[in-house]
Amino acid sequence: MALLSKSILKKHGFNKLKHKANELLNRTIDQHVTLAVTGLSRSGKTAFITSLVNQLINEGNGTKLSFFDPVHNGNFIAAKRVPQKHYHVPRFDYDSAISALTSEPATWPKPTHGISELRIAIRYQPKNSILKYATDMATLTLDITDYPGEWLLDLPMLKQTYQEWSQQTYSLMTSSPRAELSKSFLAKLKEIDLFACASEELLAELAQEYTGLLRTFRHELGLSVIQPGRFILPGDLAGAPILEFFPFPGLESIDGNDYQNAPDDSFIGMLRSRYLEYKEQVVRKFYREHFLRFDRQIVLADCLKSLNKGKESFADLELAMSMILESYNYGKSGLFSRLFSPKIDKLLFGATKADHVTPEQHGPMVSLLNQLIHQNKQHLNYESVQVKTLAIASVKATHSGISKHKGVDVPVIQGQSIGHANLEESAGLFGQKITVFPGAVPSQLPKDDYWQSNSFNFIEFAPLSGLNKQQCLPHVRMDQVLQFLLADKMI
Amino acid sequence: MALLSKSILKKHGFNKLKHKANELLNRTIDQHVTLAVTGLSRSGKTAFITSLVNQLINEGNGTKLSFFDPVHNGNFIAAKRVPQKHYHVPRFDYDSAISALTSEPATWPKPTHGISELRIAIRYQPKNSILKYATDMATLTLDITDYPGEWLLDLPMLKQTYQEWSQQTYSLMTSSPRAELSKSFLAKLKEIDLFACASEELLAELAQEYTGLLRTFRHELGLSVIQPGRFILPGDLAGAPILEFFPFPGLESIDGNDYQNAPDDSFIGMLRSRYLEYKEQVVRKFYREHFLRFDRQIVLADCLKSLNKGKESFADLELAMSMILESYNYGKSGLFSRLFSPKIDKLLFGATKADHVTPEQHGPMVSLLNQLIHQNKQHLNYESVQVKTLAIASVKATHSGISKHKGVDVPVIQGQSIGHANLEESAGLFGQKITVFPGAVPSQLPKDDYWQSNSFNFIEFAPLSGLNKQQCLPHVRMDQVLQFLLADKMI
Repeated sequence: MALLSKSILKKHGFNKLKHKANELLNRTIDQHVTLAVTGLSRSGKTAFITSLVNQLINEGNGTKLSFFDPVHNGNFIAAKRVPQKHYHVPRFDYDSAISALTSEPATWPKPTHGISELRIAIRYQPKNSILKYATDMATLTLDITDYPGEWLLDLPMLKQTYQEWSQQTYSLMTSSPRAELSKSFLAKLKEIDLFACASEELLAELAQEYTGLLRTFRHELGLSVIQPGRFILPGDLAGAPILEFFPFPGLESIDGNDYQNAPDDSFIGMLRSRYLEYKEQVVRKFYREHFLRFDRQIVLADCLKSLNKGKESFADLELAMSMILESYNYGKSGLFSRLFSPKIDKLLFGATKADHVTPEQHGPMVSLLNQLIHQNKQHLNYESVQVKTLAIASVKATHSGISKHKGVDVPVIQGQSIGHANLEESAGLFGQKITVFPGAVPSQLPKDDYWQSNSFNFIEFAPLSGLNKQQCLPHVRMDQVLQFLLADKMI
Repeated sequence: MALLSKSILKKHGFNKLKHKANELLNRTIDQHVTLAVTGLSRSGKTAFITSLVNQLINEGNGTKLSFFDPVHNGNFIAAKRVPQKHYHVPRFDYDSAISALTSEPATWPKPTHGISELRIAIRYQPKNSILKYATDMATLTLDITDYPGEWLLDLPMLKQTYQEWSQQTYSLMTSSPRAELSKSFLAKLKEIDLFACASEELLAELAQEYTGLLRTFRHELGLSVIQPGRFILPGDLAGAPILEFFPFPGLESIDGNDYQNAPDDSFIGMLRSRYLEYKEQVVRKFYREHFLRFDRQIVLADCLKSLNKGKESFADLELAMSMILESYNYGKSGLFSRLFSPKIDKLLFGATKADHVTPEQHGPMVSLLNQLIHQNKQHLNYESVQVKTLAIASVKATHSGISKHKGVDVPVIQGQSIGHANLEESAGLFGQKITVFPGAVPSQLPKDDYWQSNSFNFIEFAPLSGLNKQQCLPHVRMDQVLQFLLADKMI
């Protein structure tokens, strides 16, 4: 009896000791990843984050994350949402988003308009860790930051003077498809004597007109390069002079001394100083307070919509991609020198809405996105940033199958249409359950003859009905997303 | 001929020299004032700033500013709007506001929802200056900052712990008129185990309910003490955890050690840390970035609406006034020690809408407002802050006259009604031109019998029609406002 007690006591003491040791070790192997999620042109950031959170917290309940090693190998234990890090940053509203997706009828969640955050704690068994003999579980803390793609597109302004930025933006505004719409605005600028004393009201008026143009470029023409990005999502800065400037043509032909010595209250002086303040108070602030802290980045791009919109929209997406890649080019000629460089070591490009084409088109989708970033990829410093491209669907909205057409098997997708990307054709399709072959995705940057044949017919689908909050949402390759972004932190 | 040239040359040289001397001297005597404008309960901040700017830039065109010494003595030359100081702060939208007032039918300008700025340069002859022999004119640069009264009411939180703030707010929520509406919310708090691990979703939900209460207190009960103020005007912070806390009752009865050692992820830990973050990121930020820089402050208060609303609304206005005065009490026991104190040296309380009562009631209006701030005024350090009270109308909306009633002369006002402050009585009055004696303003804090007789009948009026942008707006005592706030900087 005395012996037994002693043995129990001993065991208890040993367990306590083991627990203490684990606690200590856990601290050293606990991992942390800050994942930044952004995207261009309504690319589905909210759906992506909602699905990612849903897959992690419901793991085991529904679709398996087969290509995510910690799940595949059985190391994944559980994940839960925990309070986020920065109290002054809006919370990513997971609950509203998942409610929209699982309601009847199911709808896509409302898009976010600024930055938001969410934190997840992932418990796992570090099986492959050299520490595995001493510990039972470890925690990976995942901070997800959602921010508008426009903010990323603003970063290259940091290395541009007002003259350089004006020149670049002016050349965009005088090329198709922006030229026609920009004419009347640019004509007004020609009336202005740059060295005359500026009228704040006139500056405000013209900035408003320029902002209107940006909105049209974005929402009607489906263009991606929108600068300055904060103009169309102003938040608390609405009405502030910092958002009341615009590019001015022909600055390069002005004598350098005259330009430098222009008085502060002249048009040139005021435009220049507002541009500088914008860089400082908006762009650099985002860079310093957020971008510098990101570990990993996923950029979502809706190539299909651009293919539908046509040649110019697609070319603009290409330009946007090259501007984005600049921020991850840490080489000597890059935007950010190594000293001030961010610490992002993995960069994923997601071609979204892969479920909106038939499965055999996913290959071409990835090649196409690779082509889009190819010329820049060469310049990337591969030692510091690992780049990957995936065709994904955050929340799968279609079923794929085979249909007979004139005696031949054709792959098709089936789903609930919410309209055609070309507005005039959408009225007849709304709310219908349709079966369709949307077309072949070109695996190379399309040539002129592709655009002439207009062979792509992309349709927007509603989410599938009958989804459940407590189950994993249907998806395409979200497991591979997790594998690339998180698996190496969970070994 | 040679002599003449020489003399012209000489004169030219002398003028040039004089000009140089003036320039130098101007620099030393140029003055600068940062005027902060705030107000409680839709007190007419926008109309006030619009009128102030309008009076200055149109001086000489219409109503004289007879009690403003620089105008009275002929020293005032001219004023104009110039670009504001801070580019990242929204511009006060004078143009829209003056357009609303001078349109047909005239309307009150839209209220502002956050901070905004506007700068005016005032040229004057410093006649009484000891430098007058050497200079022709000087410039007073006037920076006007408009901010919500709620931000001012938040300042006392800086010296309160979460426990203290909870206790104070709880006692408000359990007294009339807040008690009835707060019951169900407070009952929910009783269900919570303060030391249990907190649910972020529950915190968000309860904070939303508390915010809903604040809105009701403000907009339906017409109350003034709304804390935390940013909850009802969140701007870019909408959805951020920093705005997701609330007062918790009974904290004072918890053991001090237990309270201090509550884990970070418990309800108490999360409420406390969000309260601290709110103080740091919202209240102290406003204090540091704006409040510290103000030279002079005008606080607008609509006593008439509170008189109409009844005893409790009026008592709440009194409490708000005492909280506001705390921020200007620089003495040893004050909120801010002299070391960190703001530099405000003049504080004006404006009882607005003086044109909504008959002129002989202005005296009682001022006495009443004086009574409201009286008990605190005694504690103010008079050496550092000069306090004044005025009954004003930024933009006069009525004509006053005498009417016969049962053979007796009674003073009346006449204007275009836009409704009665008590909604149920307003339908019949809308849009009518009416002549009325709204009642006598008590010159002392009203006693219970006053509230029982309900003798005050305040009606809201539209602006007069036929106003002109290029002329001074009709007003009541805006010249005395300018005299108190600016005249000593223009001598």
